[in-house]
Amino acid sequence: MSLLDAALAYARAHEREALDELITCLKLPSVSAQPRHAHDVAMCAAMLKNALRSRGFTAEVIPTTGHPSVVGEWLQATGKPTVLIYAHYDVQPPEPLEEWHSPPFEPTVREGKLFGRGSIDDKGQLFVHLKACEAYLTGAGALPVNVKVLFEGEEEIGSPHLGDVLASQRDRLRADVVVVSDTPMLERGKPAICYGLRGLCCLEIEVSGPSHDVHSGQFGGAVINPATVLVELLAQLKDAKGRVTIPGFYAQVVPLTPAERQVLAKIPLNPQVFLQAAGVTEERGEEGHTFFERIWARPTLDINGLSSGYQGEGAKTIIPATASAKLSMRLVPNQDPGTIASLTERYLKQLCPSGVRMTVKHLGEGKPFLTPLTHPAMRAAERALKQGFGSEVSFIREGGSIPFVTAISETLQVPCLLVGFGLPDENAHAPNEYLDLDHFHRGIRSMIHLYHEMAQLTLP
Amino acid sequence: MSLLDAALAYARAHEREALDELITCLKLPSVSAQPRHAHDVAMCAAMLKNALRSRGFTAEVIPTTGHPSVVGEWLQATGKPTVLIYAHYDVQPPEPLEEWHSPPFEPTVREGKLFGRGSIDDKGQLFVHLKACEAYLTGAGALPVNVKVLFEGEEEIGSPHLGDVLASQRDRLRADVVVVSDTPMLERGKPAICYGLRGLCCLEIEVSGPSHDVHSGQFGGAVINPATVLVELLAQLKDAKGRVTIPGFYAQVVPLTPAERQVLAKIPLNPQVFLQAAGVTEERGEEGHTFFERIWARPTLDINGLSSGYQGEGAKTIIPATASAKLSMRLVPNQDPGTIASLTERYLKQLCPSGVRMTVKHLGEGKPFLTPLTHPAMRAAERALKQGFGSEVSFIREGGSIPFVTAISETLQVPCLLVGFGLPDENAHAPNEYLDLDHFHRGIRSMIHLYHEMAQLTLP
Repeated sequence: MSLLDAALAYARAHEREALDELITCLKLPSVSAQPRHAHDVAMCAAMLKNALRSRGFTAEVIPTTGHPSVVGEWLQATGKPTVLIYAHYDVQPPEPLEEWHSPPFEPTVREGKLFGRGSIDDKGQLFVHLKACEAYLTGAGALPVNVKVLFEGEEEIGSPHLGDVLASQRDRLRADVVVVSDTPMLERGKPAICYGLRGLCCLEIEVSGPSHDVHSGQFGGAVINPATVLVELLAQLKDAKGRVTIPGFYAQVVPLTPAERQVLAKIPLNPQVFLQAAGVTEERGEEGHTFFERIWARPTLDINGLSSGYQGEGAKTIIPATASAKLSMRLVPNQDPGTIASLTERYLKQLCPSGVRMTVKHLGEGKPFLTPLTHPAMRAAERALKQGFGSEVSFIREGGSIPFVTAISETLQVPCLLVGFGLPDENAHAPNEYLDLDHFHRGIRSMIHLYHEMAQLTLP
Repeated sequence: MSLLDAALAYARAHEREALDELITCLKLPSVSAQPRHAHDVAMCAAMLKNALRSRGFTAEVIPTTGHPSVVGEWLQATGKPTVLIYAHYDVQPPEPLEEWHSPPFEPTVREGKLFGRGSIDDKGQLFVHLKACEAYLTGAGALPVNVKVLFEGEEEIGSPHLGDVLASQRDRLRADVVVVSDTPMLERGKPAICYGLRGLCCLEIEVSGPSHDVHSGQFGGAVINPATVLVELLAQLKDAKGRVTIPGFYAQVVPLTPAERQVLAKIPLNPQVFLQAAGVTEERGEEGHTFFERIWARPTLDINGLSSGYQGEGAKTIIPATASAKLSMRLVPNQDPGTIASLTERYLKQLCPSGVRMTVKHLGEGKPFLTPLTHPAMRAAERALKQGFGSEVSFIREGGSIPFVTAISETLQVPCLLVGFGLPDENAHAPNEYLDLDHFHRGIRSMIHLYHEMAQLTLP
């Protein structure tokens, strides 16, 4: 019997035990945001370290000034690729408790779903990998590839110490490919591999005119109005075709290849589902691009907030002293957030009339992330998920940012696959979070196939 | 001795008594905004009624559901014009008390200035007229014109019942010209007649897009942003020359005559004084117009407030559900506020793209006011003020609105002169309000000359 077949047989024979061990882990309230649960977080790290060791991994709890990470490895597949698995074992706070149909830390199965805090985000997905590794190591005696794991304990609070862990463990974590399991699938039964995330550049623009709010009767007509200047500046940032007009904004954008446009054209989802979720009646965006290109693969510029003068009930006839706007720009490879911020600031300063003062404040940024669709690991993952789910696999991107993904791919400089098993209605971060048990077991089998497929690759 | 000379001699001989009677009136805290002073307001009305009667006027307190007005008349100048005097006897609250150098209701003379609440706004100016009438009636036996008075008790709270008084007393108040004394002069020693006020049209525009704030990463690029729509709409309301682009906006504007432009060109004030008061470094306005034309005689459109999405610290990457703006438009004769509101709403609806909902709310309006510079009463007032102050007289307009002036001129349909004796630094509405005593007595003599000049007019 091949390693693959033995592992698959083991997984099918031990579904009950897989669920039981996950339930044990879910009972630990490892809520990273709540200091009273710090001990539970530490207990959970220790439990995972032991779970890894009992399967034959070396494993260690890596302390930080916050909650620890768990790092482990099994490196006996000499000459074979090395896969790094990322997942996190901390969970969101369970409140409001009264909205749960069963207690958040007493995991309960109803109608094929395991309800409990962390069941899908992200302990359930962590266990998909743990159980796939166990199937090989216990069921077949060996993994077909080298496997390293990084289980984080602070993802739900923004990964404040992940950079420290990545820096101190960089050599230990070196791998040929990273697999991150913390994202949803497209729909029930429709597996997806996310290969790109947009970057982010957030700015705040403030325009100041009069030294104080002045009377629009006394001064109106001869005194510059900073709110008028602001709206005129903002209105010049996009053209009638929905394109951003900042000179150089698109200069570093890697054009979509025909192959990638084909992949995005095949997404088996109706954009209406998204538009309904946003509560709008029609799509609006950059000319010449499809819905999924617009939300995943094209850069954007959005006003997030406007503030000026009087905002209360009724009228107040003033020329306001200041007006400000917050902007977020979503970026795609190879746009650099710092460069985009500078280009935007330069353009605004060039457009800004005399007689007002303008400041541009940088509020935050994140680099875009992309693993080329042509990377051989993509095909390996596609074959694996197709085996596990018996369904075509979609290659998707996400329009938002996931800071830890960017941090990992930046630090380790390796391709990164986002292969998640959640569902859009899984209630992550909300009451009644659940894990679909069919997806859980299909996920385990998919990852068994993934390690097998990875073993066949000749990675650079 | 002529009536004029006798009245002037009387006024010069009784300056001390004039001041004393004003001081008595200032001691009454007729604060219309504070219910605990309702009795003081009523006492003040009674005092003024008696003061009028003792000079030979008929006079009456006209009750309202708020504070009363005092109406009186002396109509024995058969065949001569009738002048209606408007002033108000209520005062602003005196707080903050600790900032007064002498108590607000214990009038005190220091360095030629009478300090006390109401000293200039508006009891001092009311007494200018009362004392000019007394000088004629007591010092010369008769007034050269018919004089009616309307002393209001609610000006400082927005004249809520002035409309009722004007409606019920319309026939009684009928006159050939109205003189309002409740405005400042241009500068110390430089008398001015204000012959025009701008009207007002206030609107609130709200644009709604998504049904709730949505994630700018998830939806940015394909979902319409109402803040972007709003700034694009607002930016289209003015052109590069500072002109309002709403079709029909200027259609009813009466062009400035060459004569009026000459008058405004002669205003003996440096616009820098205004710009410094507003705290701006340079003038900005409609091309082809001077500073005083821009702030007094040309219509405007100003944004008074902007509100949308996230306005707190830092970034929040949302596409906001709504965005709104408040606008005030200052209007000039013969622009009609209702028409301007409709034109604006129609234009915005025409510009507004599909995919958002837009509402336009009317927040308030006021008609512009103008007495033609060519009206003979203007020349009469100019001659009178020149006599009283020994200085050239400026014809000015004001950029704001004074609701009671519009109400009076609309109801009575007579020309209206705004002849005030305040100073820009007189602290009206603030601690240490004062009346310049030289101005007070020059004001009385000016009004003595005014009644004399009016008597020479043949009014239509």
